[in-house]
Order: sequence, then C-alpha cells, then structure tokens
Amino acid sequence: MSVAAEFEAANQQYAAQFTKGDLPLPPGRKVLIVTCMDARIDPARALGLSEGDAHVIRNAGGRASEALRSVIISQQLLGTREIVLIHHTDCGMLTFSDDVLRSKIRTELGENADHVSFLPFADLRQSVEDDVALLQKSGLVLDVPVTGYIYDVKTGSITKVG
Amino acid sequence: MSVAAEFEAANQQYAAQFTKGDLPLPPGRKVLIVTCMDARIDPARALGLSEGDAHVIRNAGGRASEALRSVIISQQLLGTREIVLIHHTDCGMLTFSDDVLRSKIRTELGENADHVSFLPFADLRQSVEDDVALLQKSGLVLDVPVTGYIYDVKTGSITKVG
Repeated sequence: MSVAAEFEAANQQYAAQFTKGDLPLPPGRKVLIVTCMDARIDPARALGLSEGDAHVIRNAGGRASEALRSVIISQQLLGTREIVLIHHTDCGMLTFSDDVLRSKIRTELGENADHVSFLPFADLRQSVEDDVALLQKSGLVLDVPVTGYIYDVKTGSITKVG
Repeated sequence: MSVAAEFEAANQQYAAQFTKGDLPLPPGRKVLIVTCMDARIDPARALGLSEGDAHVIRNAGGRASEALRSVIISQQLLGTREIVLIHHTDCGMLTFSDDVLRSKIRTELGENADHVSFLPFADLRQSVEDDVALLQKSGLVLDVPVTGYIYDVKTGSITKVG
C-alpha cells in the first residue's frame, strides 16, 4: 500500500471526529512559525498549537530567505504580528555543500542544478542568527517581534538564540 | 506575554514527556508532504503522522515550484520516495492577485515588490493538478508516486484529485 493510501485511511478517522469546521482563515494567535521540514519536528505538539492558531512555514533548513513570500502574505493579508523561527540539531543542512549536491544530481540524474541554491549551513546557531536578522532587516517584513530558537531532536526542547 | 513565551511554556511540557530522542534523520515512512501554511491544517493529526515519519514542506498555497529545493534535498540526501501534495478549500491564495498585493506593499510599506511572484491561484483543483504535474515533469525530481489532494477545512477530510 502506498503511504498516500495510509494517509487516506488515517484521515477518515480524523475527519470522523473533526469539530473545528468553523475556524476563520486568519491565524487566531496572530503568529507565524518558520521551521525545518525535518520529520522529527512536530510543531503543533512541540509548541502546543491547536488547529487555527498559527501559520507554519516549513522548508529544508527552515530558511527565512525562501519563506519571505509566505511571510509577506501572512502579514499583509492575514494579520500575523509575531514570527518564531526554529532550526534544529542534527539538521541535514549541516551535512552537505551546494557543490556536492549539484555534482550528485549531475551524476545520478544527468541534470544541471547549478542555478539552484540549496541553502546549506555550517553553523547552526549562526544560521538562526542570520535568518532572524534577514527577517528583521527586510523592508518587506513588518517591524514585529522575531524570536529564534534551536530545537534539540534528542530532548524535544527549544532553546532561545541570542 | 508574547506568543513565543507561550510556546516556551508549552514546549517545557512536551519535552518533559518526550520519548522520541533516538529517531534517525531520514523519514521512516520515506514520504514527503507538500502543503499550505494555513493555520487550520495540522498535517500530523490529519494524516496520522508520528514524529520521524515524514518530511513536511509548507508555504503559502503549498506551491510545488517553491518547494523544489526541499524536494530535491529530501530525495537525494534523505531517501524519500513518495510525494503527497495537499491544497485546501478557503485558501488565502484564492483571494488576491500579484498586482493587488504589490500595490498594497507599495502603499503601506513604501517598498517595491514587483520582483516577487506571490503564486496566487484562481482555481483550486487546477492548482493541485498544476503542482502535481510540475513535480512529475521536473528532471530534478525522481520518478516516484505523486498524489494530489484537496483538504476541506470545514470537514477535515482529504479528497484525491485526478
């Protein structure tokens, strides 16, 4: 069975007990979370979110530069007024370079990915500081609180950076 | 109290009961989910995910073009071999155009965002079909199953597209 079919089965159970059908489009807690796609992170459970609370943007690394389009939409059209950015220990982004991945793609897929910036980083704490600064300095982002954290995949706990 | 402080308090409870500290980096179910940042969607609860199961990429609209960098990393470095893409009813992306948002940014922030494509769409089903096709046709994405769904925010249920 494909995982998609397993998701369909699990979703039937979720929908059967669903009671949140009247939530408004704008996030109730007016907050936007930017974090990594990593499978070990469950933002809702780890931060105490209910359906309707918060926008959640996730990409490889939780990089702010790629999140910018969504951040602007979240603030300008849907009223969020706080940003929480979370990177994490043992992140895949610490394990490779653009050159290594582009070379792998050239060898295995026969494709040129030289135009893609994969946004890896060598220092976890620095990556949080850089991404918080990017959001704070962008003229396209409102002047709202931006807090950066590191999530520890061994303990499940977040630690504020800076 | 900032929402960040509320997250810290909620996370202390999560970490106190955390038992998933030895999960490997690659997703256990070898699947990658692409969906919207919408606050009403909780991919883990709605699809029956546990920590460690799946990569989850989220952005405004759940657009595949922006997810491409993360999809490549997920497949090439972390072994996922199936993609599930989910857009949803009442999506904010159905409510605006690039021109409208760029004009709002010019008026309210005094900034030029003409270089940003905000990736809105006018037809929900078409947006799923377009994004599934984009992933299936990209030479940078492996030839793996890609299934598209619409999530209904009123019922909590997913419906396959196509």
